[in-house]
Amino acid sequence: MQGTFQRVALALAATSLLAAPLAAQTGYEHADPLVGTGGEGHTFPGAVAPFGMVQLSPDTDTGCAIRECYGHAAGYRHGDPTIQGFSLTHFSGAGHSDLGDFLIAPVAGDTVPLEPGDPKKPGSGYRSRFTHADEVARPGYYAVTLQDQGVRAEMTAGTRVAVERYAFPAGKAAHLVLDLRSSLYNYPGKILWSSVRVRPDGTITGARETRGWAPARKLFFAIRPSAPLKTHAFVDTEGKVPYRGFQGPGRGDDGVAQLQGRAIVARLDFGMLDRPLELRVALSSVDEDAALANLASEAGDFDAVHARTTAAWKQALGAIEAQGSDTALRNFYSAFYHTLMAPSVFSDADGRYRGPDDQVHQAEGFTFHSTFSLWDTFRAEHPLLLLVQPEARNRDIIQSLIASQQESPFGILPVWQFQGRETWTMIGYHAVPVIADAYLKGLRGFDGKAALDAMVASATYGPYGGLDWYQKLGYVPIDKEPEAASKTVEYAYDDWTIARMARALGRYDLAATFDKRAANWRNSFDVKTGFLRARKSDGAYRTPFDPTAINYGSDYTEGNAWQYSWFVPQDQAGLFRLMGGDAAVVRKLDAMFDFDNSKLDYSHAEDIAGLIGQYIHGNEPSHHVAYLYSYAGQPWRTQERLKQIVDSQYKPTTDGLAGNDDLGQMSAWLVFTMLGFYPVAPGSNQYVLGRPFLERATLTLPNGKRFTVSAPGLSEANRYVGNVTLNGRKLDRQFVTHEELMRGGELRFAMQATPNRTVVPAAGRPYSMSR
Amino acid sequence: MQGTFQRVALALAATSLLAAPLAAQTGYEHADPLVGTGGEGHTFPGAVAPFGMVQLSPDTDTGCAIRECYGHAAGYRHGDPTIQGFSLTHFSGAGHSDLGDFLIAPVAGDTVPLEPGDPKKPGSGYRSRFTHADEVARPGYYAVTLQDQGVRAEMTAGTRVAVERYAFPAGKAAHLVLDLRSSLYNYPGKILWSSVRVRPDGTITGARETRGWAPARKLFFAIRPSAPLKTHAFVDTEGKVPYRGFQGPGRGDDGVAQLQGRAIVARLDFGMLDRPLELRVALSSVDEDAALANLASEAGDFDAVHARTTAAWKQALGAIEAQGSDTALRNFYSAFYHTLMAPSVFSDADGRYRGPDDQVHQAEGFTFHSTFSLWDTFRAEHPLLLLVQPEARNRDIIQSLIASQQESPFGILPVWQFQGRETWTMIGYHAVPVIADAYLKGLRGFDGKAALDAMVASATYGPYGGLDWYQKLGYVPIDKEPEAASKTVEYAYDDWTIARMARALGRYDLAATFDKRAANWRNSFDVKTGFLRARKSDGAYRTPFDPTAINYGSDYTEGNAWQYSWFVPQDQAGLFRLMGGDAAVVRKLDAMFDFDNSKLDYSHAEDIAGLIGQYIHGNEPSHHVAYLYSYAGQPWRTQERLKQIVDSQYKPTTDGLAGNDDLGQMSAWLVFTMLGFYPVAPGSNQYVLGRPFLERATLTLPNGKRFTVSAPGLSEANRYVGNVTLNGRKLDRQFVTHEELMRGGELRFAMQATPNRTVVPAAGRPYSMSR
Repeated sequence: MQGTFQRVALALAATSLLAAPLAAQTGYEHADPLVGTGGEGHTFPGAVAPFGMVQLSPDTDTGCAIRECYGHAAGYRHGDPTIQGFSLTHFSGAGHSDLGDFLIAPVAGDTVPLEPGDPKKPGSGYRSRFTHADEVARPGYYAVTLQDQGVRAEMTAGTRVAVERYAFPAGKAAHLVLDLRSSLYNYPGKILWSSVRVRPDGTITGARETRGWAPARKLFFAIRPSAPLKTHAFVDTEGKVPYRGFQGPGRGDDGVAQLQGRAIVARLDFGMLDRPLELRVALSSVDEDAALANLASEAGDFDAVHARTTAAWKQALGAIEAQGSDTALRNFYSAFYHTLMAPSVFSDADGRYRGPDDQVHQAEGFTFHSTFSLWDTFRAEHPLLLLVQPEARNRDIIQSLIASQQESPFGILPVWQFQGRETWTMIGYHAVPVIADAYLKGLRGFDGKAALDAMVASATYGPYGGLDWYQKLGYVPIDKEPEAASKTVEYAYDDWTIARMARALGRYDLAATFDKRAANWRNSFDVKTGFLRARKSDGAYRTPFDPTAINYGSDYTEGNAWQYSWFVPQDQAGLFRLMGGDAAVVRKLDAMFDFDNSKLDYSHAEDIAGLIGQYIHGNEPSHHVAYLYSYAGQPWRTQERLKQIVDSQYKPTTDGLAGNDDLGQMSAWLVFTMLGFYPVAPGSNQYVLGRPFLERATLTLPNGKRFTVSAPGLSEANRYVGNVTLNGRKLDRQFVTHEELMRGGELRFAMQATPNRTVVPAAGRPYSMSR
Repeated sequence: MQGTFQRVALALAATSLLAAPLAAQTGYEHADPLVGTGGEGHTFPGAVAPFGMVQLSPDTDTGCAIRECYGHAAGYRHGDPTIQGFSLTHFSGAGHSDLGDFLIAPVAGDTVPLEPGDPKKPGSGYRSRFTHADEVARPGYYAVTLQDQGVRAEMTAGTRVAVERYAFPAGKAAHLVLDLRSSLYNYPGKILWSSVRVRPDGTITGARETRGWAPARKLFFAIRPSAPLKTHAFVDTEGKVPYRGFQGPGRGDDGVAQLQGRAIVARLDFGMLDRPLELRVALSSVDEDAALANLASEAGDFDAVHARTTAAWKQALGAIEAQGSDTALRNFYSAFYHTLMAPSVFSDADGRYRGPDDQVHQAEGFTFHSTFSLWDTFRAEHPLLLLVQPEARNRDIIQSLIASQQESPFGILPVWQFQGRETWTMIGYHAVPVIADAYLKGLRGFDGKAALDAMVASATYGPYGGLDWYQKLGYVPIDKEPEAASKTVEYAYDDWTIARMARALGRYDLAATFDKRAANWRNSFDVKTGFLRARKSDGAYRTPFDPTAINYGSDYTEGNAWQYSWFVPQDQAGLFRLMGGDAAVVRKLDAMFDFDNSKLDYSHAEDIAGLIGQYIHGNEPSHHVAYLYSYAGQPWRTQERLKQIVDSQYKPTTDGLAGNDDLGQMSAWLVFTMLGFYPVAPGSNQYVLGRPFLERATLTLPNGKRFTVSAPGLSEANRYVGNVTLNGRKLDRQFVTHEELMRGGELRFAMQATPNRTVVPAAGRPYSMSR
């Protein structure tokens, strides 16, 4: 073990990552990748580096055609009894899915099944039983014992290289099954094409094109085993297809150098091994040679890669040094861990990547990132990254968005993009607030004019989501476009961020245009019922109207009038006036939180989880709503609701997430909220105060300054904020600004057991357009 | 019309191609692209430049799932009543098929059908009736009137750019249907994926991946119309597929910038036009940007491209200046025309191409060519190109073969490759004699050692075509591998060319090895029956044995014992001894040619056509056989048989080819034979004398020298050669050497009405290993 330690130390020294503060150990020790792997969190337990291109993780089940698939969006479901194998790509917390590329299962002994088999019948295939007692999951490391094979499996991952390590039982031959038919959310016809090939040096390369969530996704791989390949077989299990071509050498039997088809499985044989088999693996969207180049771009064996990635996680999680109870820290750092995966690196080591137009592009001066779950992540995930990740990472993200717009056949920014592919999932053009927020918070080093052009292009592309109608009528009409009410308010918010960005760039003409559009939310707000509602193109609100109704294709997106009626981040004061003023707003907020759902049935809506009355924490439209009491002048009510939400919706356990983590948004909400503030309106440069859930937390900001939040007196009983000071001066407002954070200093929340009911005057309330 | 002429003249001047000799006009005027478009010639009538990347030609029918497909291997069948549209890729004379990429049909008026419709029901779709009276087919140019649309359609093609020109009837709106579902030899599931996109400048780009003859072929296109695109619709006609993704903007309706899917059809609308619509089109195997770059690589409108290509054809066809009857010249130049298409240019203007491993490669210092129908073309097509095409073209071909081997996942040379994709069609490793023949004939400028390595790798790759067994037993055993007899003799011949090449490179060790393998044909020749026969691994010949039996999966490849027993080009003397000597050989040859087939039924064998007894001119194994009388000392019998074959198997008409042209091999046979000599054993540097069918023909050789063949006295009656002189000296042998041709000069055949029965002594007979 000393040898291992020395190698780790050397690797650390070599990569200059020893500079990570010792305190960083706290974050690393409290981050638990297993949080959210049960329930409907949809996180994965496997190995990934911060924002890494490869997410190497076990798949307990895969195919939608075979079994229930929603619960297997990340491949692994904590309650499952078997592991099918380990694949290289996974989403963290998505509500839909895909990926699971290039599944490998180790098999020991003389019988090598090429089918996964039935989980209920041990030995019926290559899958194996496992127990959680054998599992180890740490940031960048996962290990488990495959009981039926007697194989200890370990996973680690660097930025573009992952390493699998399999210790086979003594006296049994080592085999791998590489199943190119396996994929997450699989169904017949998803695998358009695949190929596998043995190179003369024993490296296995190949490719797959799939028609899943993304329409035609190409991914290439390279796998280099530590032991020589003795024999192998490539098998096409789809014999019945009327392929009109001819036979190549050997017809896909043993020893053939390459096989292509729609249903390929490979058996790789290594014979008896006297040490664990390690597989260095890499991916590329460009081609197999690029996957090989990526493989070469990060050197080292399992231990070396593991050491580097551990150091990288300590560094990344060390950006916030928190103090608090063990449960609080485990909640906090597990969430923080889950915010540091997406958008993930997607360009190759040489800068090339396959863009939204399916063409190969060269990223010049930046690293292309993909996996943009923007409807979720514009809210808190991206604002968080601006505080805890280096400027270079945030710049990469913005440049990736701009490049994606320039390479989009539609000329618009990503909606829900992964691996460079647009999926058209969810609504809005929420890359717009991400860019505006970054720019307005001072991030530079990208082309501001090109960014604004991309934002405007996205907001004016008529064929997308009823935008032609929106621009004509000032709202999206429900008889022309589904989910019209949600689209209208989200467009209006996005438009406001364009106006802010345009003004910052001196484009006052554009600012005026989009300021006007930012008020469009009013066109969909029905003063009579007090709810946001969908209107038809003739101007009438659609009837019948039931504010609790949730249906796909309805007036709202994954929600109803209760949740969506609060979505005017740019103009809460204007909204509140229409609702009848502060007191009426507080009553309505309470009515929502305290709603009696006993007569409702939402079992048909997968994404609706984490209900507190009609507040739905498991989905994003509610995420800012608890903070709205502060806008209405009653911050103590926000403080109460935050405690209610944190206590009921987050646990540091496998079923600890109330809903899909959504590529870090659910977790980012918790990170901000536990720090004591939240970016209700990205683009405003304000963080609205809530109440801290940590005794003390210090952010090391991208500019190197340190900003501390302290909460003297914090306890279960002391749940209210008595007063707040910023650098020792009393703060008579309910927000801090980005500039204040970036200057460094200390924000001090004096906690107490009773509410401080001093109503906050309008001047102390957060940003609102119409104030 | 004067204006057009002037433009042509200017274009010619600008490209310095006016240097083409005036005599070149003869070739251009007598070459008829329609020859072979009926019957089973499988040639196409459309526009192509010499060895051009784009073959723009009408498709009268396409899908194998719908209709008889063998007759539509080149898309167009002369007897069909309708044209579906015009597509960009076609094989010339293949016996299997694929391609037909990116079919466009012009539609005039207000109704634009998106389905091709039933040929029997005019107006039921976008296809249209046509008559041959309206057709014009010239090298590099094709025109026809689409009667149902009233559209005059013209096609021309440069090396990487083709131009389509459509004159729409006055007062009717101009539309194009771009049908990405259409393909030659189409069947359900062939189109793996496709996409189409309108760029901001109105250029249409897209891609298709197909699973046809080649396993996963990717091709990208760019189409730039001369008139602005007014509106468009992209439609996915495969609504029923359980695609799990989400909807993009507009769901594939009018005006959407891009659509992807498996069944895409595009409608492009140009409104009323006051001049013909021109489409500049280009392809690439790399990506859409590369297709755009290829489009930019050749400038000019329809007339400019047409002028350049006309000049290029005059130049290429001018390499042989022939004199003779009109029928003879039409036969000769139509055949010569058909030898100048494949292998065709495949790399992009910047040198990139997608190679056999599906990866993008850069051709350094050469132009990558593909479409290698090597089982056919090693015989006469490639030897012809060494005489009539510049060294650069031949070098490109050899370098493309070597690069293909280096990029092959199997490490072997192409077998039957097109668009960089291996199809594994037919047998042998006949890239080997192509390379050896070129090298031994003095072609240099490529890496001889790499070439030899590639040849040896191909001849020793065990999993291919029973090579493991062949190397073990000295023959391919029929109980282990089908078509074993054919494989044994073809491998043995290929091996002999490796030995010759190895010796030339000083690799005497390899030469000895492969000289020994070259004698392996003996292991499959049954002296008792006098036929080549398949043996089992236990050494016994397979029974029952019927020398007239032709079956797929039998002992022979597309033939029987009658044809295959003659295939020992490297050792005819050895073969003749086993057959019982010259007299027995002549008797056997006669028995073959004069065989009574009346009791046989070969209707099940598509490729068996052009029968003269058991001599089958429509397929390649017979191609050298008429010349074997000369090897047996009776050249006058060769002269008789050649006249019999030429008269019965070739006509300058649409049904003028006795069988598939096979990428020029059937035509190359005729070109050589009409010149008076034939390369029976490529690799020997000898051309075996037959008799000329032209009064006079002068080759302008790649080294600039001129070699004339004259036939004083040639007439229908004077069908025999009295004597032959080379540069005035009487030739007392039945061959001329490559070196003699390359020195320039005159080969004079004095023709007469009676045979010169002087038996040729062994010393005057062509090359044979065992003599």
